Amino acid sequence: MTIGVVGLGLIGGSIGLALRDSDRSVVGYDPDPANAKLAKDRMCVDELQSLEDVAQADVVFVAAPPSHVVEVLGKLRDAKRPETILTDCASVKRPVAAWAEETGEKRFVPGHPMAGHEKSGPGFASPWMFRHARWVLSPLPTTDSKAVSSVEKLVKEMGAVPVRIPPDRHDRHVAIVSHLPHAIAGALVAMADSLEDEEVSGGSWRDLTRVGGVDPGLWSQIFLGNRVELSQVLSDMSRQLSKLSEDLAREDANAVVEFLAVAQRAKARQDARAPGVSPSALTKTGRLKGKR
Amino acid sequence: MTIGVVGLGLIGGSIGLALRDSDRSVVGYDPDPANAKLAKDRMCVDELQSLEDVAQADVVFVAAPPSHVVEVLGKLRDAKRPETILTDCASVKRPVAAWAEETGEKRFVPGHPMAGHEKSGPGFASPWMFRHARWVLSPLPTTDSKAVSSVEKLVKEMGAVPVRIPPDRHDRHVAIVSHLPHAIAGALVAMADSLEDEEVSGGSWRDLTRVGGVDPGLWSQIFLGNRVELSQVLSDMSRQLSKLSEDLAREDANAVVEFLAVAQRAKARQDARAPGVSPSALTKTGRLKGKR
Repeated sequence: MTIGVVGLGLIGGSIGLALRDSDRSVVGYDPDPANAKLAKDRMCVDELQSLEDVAQADVVFVAAPPSHVVEVLGKLRDAKRPETILTDCASVKRPVAAWAEETGEKRFVPGHPMAGHEKSGPGFASPWMFRHARWVLSPLPTTDSKAVSSVEKLVKEMGAVPVRIPPDRHDRHVAIVSHLPHAIAGALVAMADSLEDEEVSGGSWRDLTRVGGVDPGLWSQIFLGNRVELSQVLSDMSRQLSKLSEDLAREDANAVVEFLAVAQRAKARQDARAPGVSPSALTKTGRLKGKR
Repeated sequence: MTIGVVGLGLIGGSIGLALRDSDRSVVGYDPDPANAKLAKDRMCVDELQSLEDVAQADVVFVAAPPSHVVEVLGKLRDAKRPETILTDCASVKRPVAAWAEETGEKRFVPGHPMAGHEKSGPGFASPWMFRHARWVLSPLPTTDSKAVSSVEKLVKEMGAVPVRIPPDRHDRHVAIVSHLPHAIAGALVAMADSLEDEEVSGGSWRDLTRVGGVDPGLWSQIFLGNRVELSQVLSDMSRQLSKLSEDLAREDANAVVEFLAVAQRAKARQDARAPGVSPSALTKTGRLKGKR
C-alpha cells in the first residue's frame, strides 16, 4: 500500500510520520523545496515525488494551505488512477464539499483532524500528533462508502477517533470550538501588549493566550474560509461580553451571578457528556475515553 | 514563629501546607466547621483556633472570600498584637488599600497570589500551589517596610516570586490577565452548550474553557470588586471582536491578516519579555526563569 501526502507542513509531516510502516510506503510532495527537504530529513516520508506521481498512491492526504486545497484536489483528480482515494485536512469543509458535488468525485472524503500546535512546519511534526484527537470526516451522501471506511481505518491507525459530521454542521461547530477561541486569544494578547507587568499572570492567562500568536497567513485563510459562521459567532460573543460589561457597570449582582451560573451549568454538562476531552480524564486514565 | 490563616479554602489551605514546618506553628480559622475540619484533617494547619486567637500570630494571611476580606481585616486589627503583620490574598487590591488608608494600619501588606485552580475548597489545597507563581504585593507608601520584607520572605519560601505593583495598576492588570479570561471562558462554554458534537474539539478549546465553570458565588464577588476596570476591558474586547466580525462579513482579507499580525507580534514580544511564563520554558528548564 502506498500513502501519498501533499503539503509537508506540521499536519502533512505528522501524517507521514504516523503512517510510515514496514509494509507501506509514504510518498510526499511539497512545492517548497526547503519544506520538502526537511520533511524527508525528518523521515516524514520515504520518498519525495512530483504531484502527479503522488496522485498514483492508494490514498492521498491533502494537507495544503486552506486556500490551495481545492486547486490541489483538482490537479490530483486529473492525474490520479480511478481507484485512488483523496482526503483533505482543511478546517473548513463546505468549500471542498462543494468541489466534490461540482466534480462528482465519489472517492474524495472531506476530513479535518482536530489537532495542531501553535508552531508550524515539518520541524514540529510528530507521529503522536493525532493520538486521542477527534478526526472529523464529512462525506457527502454520494461519497463511496468503501473510500470512507479506508480513510477511517487510517485515521484510527494514527491514534485518532473518527467522527462523521455533515459539512455544514462541521463548519458551524469549528467556528465556535476552534476559530473563535483563536480569534479571542489573538485579541487578548493584543490587548495585553501595553501592560507594564506582563510577566505577572496565572494559569488561565497562559491557557487562553497559548494560540494567540498563530501564523496570520494560514489563519486568515481559515477565518475567511469560514467567514459566514465565524462572523456570526464573533458577533454573538461580542454581544455577550458587552452585556456583562453593562451589568458590571450598573453593579447588577444578580445578572453577574446568573452569567457565571449559566456558564458553570454548561461546563458541567459538557464535562459530563464528553469526559474524554477534559484534561483530568486524560491524566487519570492515560488515554482518552471517548463515547465511541 | 506562628503563622495564622483565616479562611481555610483552596488558597488558605495551600498557604498552610506550604508554610508548615518543624520550627513554626500554623494556626487557622474558618467560620465553616466542615471546611475547618477538612483543612485540619488534611494537615493544612497544626491547630484550629478562634479568630481572636489567630490574630495573635506573627503573620496572619487572610484568604477569606473577597467580599468578607475588609470585615475580617477589621476584626483582626481589633484583636491583634501591635506587631502582628496582616496580609490578604484578594484578587482586587483597591478596596483593601483603601481600608489601610482609612484605618492607618501600617502593618498590613495587600497581597495577591497569582495561582489557583478551577476547583475550590481545602480538599484541593496543595503545598505546591504557589511554586513558580507570581505573588503581587501592593504596599502603600505608608506601609511598614519591615512588614513588607517579612511577607516577601514567606512568599519566597512558598516557592512564589514576589512582585511589587501599586494597587491601581494591579487592578487594571488583573482585569485583563485574569478576570477577562475567566469571563470569556464562561461565555464560550455557554455558547457551546447547544452544539450537537460537543465531544469534537481540540487543544485550544480545552485550554480556553478550562476555567469556564468557576464558582459563581466567588467569581461574582471578584468581578464586582473590580467592576470599573473589568467593565472597561470587557467593552474593549467586545469592540475588537465586533470589528473582526464586520471585517469577515465584508471579506476584508487585509484587515483579517492585520488583526492576526498584530496579535502575533504582541505574543512574540510578550514571550520574549516574560520567557518564564511560557509553558515551553517551563518544560525545558523544569523551573520558571523569571526576570528577577
